[in-house]
Amino acid sequence: MKIAGFDIGGANTDLAVIDFEKGEIKNIEVDFAYLPMWSNNDDLSHVLIELIENICHLSEIDAVGISMTAELVDAYDTKKEGVLDVVKKCEEAFSCPIAYVGIDGMMTKSEIEKNPLKAAAANWIATAQIATLISDNCIFIDTGSTTTDIIPIKEGRECAIGKSDFDRSATGELVYTGTLRTNLASFLDKVELNGKSYRVASELFAQTADVYMVLDLIDEKDYICDTFDGEGKSKLDCAKRIARVVCADLEMLSMDDVTEMCEYIHQKQVEQIAGGLKQVCETQGLNLIVTTGLGKDILDKKAAELLGLEVKSMGDILTDDECTVAPAVGTAVMMEKFLN
Amino acid sequence: MKIAGFDIGGANTDLAVIDFEKGEIKNIEVDFAYLPMWSNNDDLSHVLIELIENICHLSEIDAVGISMTAELVDAYDTKKEGVLDVVKKCEEAFSCPIAYVGIDGMMTKSEIEKNPLKAAAANWIATAQIATLISDNCIFIDTGSTTTDIIPIKEGRECAIGKSDFDRSATGELVYTGTLRTNLASFLDKVELNGKSYRVASELFAQTADVYMVLDLIDEKDYICDTFDGEGKSKLDCAKRIARVVCADLEMLSMDDVTEMCEYIHQKQVEQIAGGLKQVCETQGLNLIVTTGLGKDILDKKAAELLGLEVKSMGDILTDDECTVAPAVGTAVMMEKFLN
Repeated sequence: MKIAGFDIGGANTDLAVIDFEKGEIKNIEVDFAYLPMWSNNDDLSHVLIELIENICHLSEIDAVGISMTAELVDAYDTKKEGVLDVVKKCEEAFSCPIAYVGIDGMMTKSEIEKNPLKAAAANWIATAQIATLISDNCIFIDTGSTTTDIIPIKEGRECAIGKSDFDRSATGELVYTGTLRTNLASFLDKVELNGKSYRVASELFAQTADVYMVLDLIDEKDYICDTFDGEGKSKLDCAKRIARVVCADLEMLSMDDVTEMCEYIHQKQVEQIAGGLKQVCETQGLNLIVTTGLGKDILDKKAAELLGLEVKSMGDILTDDECTVAPAVGTAVMMEKFLN
Repeated sequence: MKIAGFDIGGANTDLAVIDFEKGEIKNIEVDFAYLPMWSNNDDLSHVLIELIENICHLSEIDAVGISMTAELVDAYDTKKEGVLDVVKKCEEAFSCPIAYVGIDGMMTKSEIEKNPLKAAAANWIATAQIATLISDNCIFIDTGSTTTDIIPIKEGRECAIGKSDFDRSATGELVYTGTLRTNLASFLDKVELNGKSYRVASELFAQTADVYMVLDLIDEKDYICDTFDGEGKSKLDCAKRIARVVCADLEMLSMDDVTEMCEYIHQKQVEQIAGGLKQVCETQGLNLIVTTGLGKDILDKKAAELLGLEVKSMGDILTDDECTVAPAVGTAVMMEKFLN
């Protein structure tokens, strides 16, 4: 049985195609596409099909599972409108069985139509499936391109207190910060450089992908989103954007200066994530952390270590590429269980 | 003598046309245009002429003074490139005498070509001219659409420690926050609502203009920049964008909830500005504040009061519309002095 799991985010759509044999995972193939849903959501059906066809023939797919967070983008007036539009476009794309990840488990199209909000931003429910393969009692942390999910698991079941993104932003279970697309101005008040403290410019000048390029923590192939200024993704291009965050340029700052700024910025983002992690740990009394996602080593491991917590990685059972799309992998796993 | 003073910012270009008689101001007329220089700088010459022609015939203008901050936009690789491009476009627009505000006073085109950075972000030098008409020893504070200048004046002369935007962001003399265009995510880590503390979404969801519309502190005619989602500027449209900042929508939050959020956000922006003001006050030992700009009553007065400082307003000698374009008024005043 070959099942496709999609995680349709605001900016990225991730896919895992999993071959199951008697309920066991035999093979996983993954891919992703940058699809800004605030402007290009009309391309969704097409992108879903194209992603599958990069891996196998569409007719080989027995079923499709979908999780989403794209309903929050500002192309939609309400989340309800967003969920229903995503569902409509998924149903248009496929003729095989489809179901959707909801906060209480998989949902059919007709179930979603009765209660759309249950399928809003529930992709972390899918990731929790994978985390339980590592430990039945842990907190898994998944830092993607844009957001960080911090989900407690007890006795093999997720036990998050917040069920919507709104609630989870209060409980620490959602920290809206990521490895690529996060505007530096959003988590920095000031940047320290050469012993001085500089306020940052509130503009769309540079994002976290620029910082991790300069620090050699990601490659240009990881930098899948658009740059803020429409220029290139080389270290020099990234450094130019980062200098602008303190109203400077590369005639005023050296590459060493920019690197010093980046180390400071990196630490501040680790602390931001550690803030959410600490809140969840204290609420739940859990202290084993399972990391996944693009930021698992760059950010999540460091945040856990900052708090003196024990750390394991989904990398023990998945490849790095699979960890990056863990919610899509989890969605395919949930779909297989739903069918059987 | 009729002199045009322009303040060419990243997003807005402001104009003051002043009639002088024997060095005295006889009449002031002002206007402004939203011109996003990161994308539309090719329109600059055209917009400059059009702004003047809304007030008088171009041939009536005896001279033009220019101040700028637009060189920082990411259409330019370096500030130097930005300054020289703005100068080129100004020279193309006018055949009368032109000079530019620099940190040491007015500069001609050929002087700027030798040292372009002296004309970068020097518009606050022009505003200082106006502040001295209120007091020879004060700190003037000008919160515009995007940024806040906090400039100390002693014995009738500005005595700012930082001379570039970069230096001023460390001294507190520039706080990159404003009344209209500031992304809420840039100065908020969390928002308090109904006794809970919600982390904010690092996206381009809502800006300060949305908050001040909901609080009835600005009118739709003041909201001159684009909305982040391309939708309307009504209070309802603004509230919808603000709800999204905590991953919610107007089916989850009431207008009362959004208003409560806005009051909290307003207070946080006052505190952000007060942070810069406190730093400048302590450095300079000055405690009379002179406010101007669109945010003079909404933000600056409240920031000064929070710190227990004495407050006067440029509104005592200028109209509110003139206060909003104070750097343009100051630029025309400097140009008149330069010619005589």
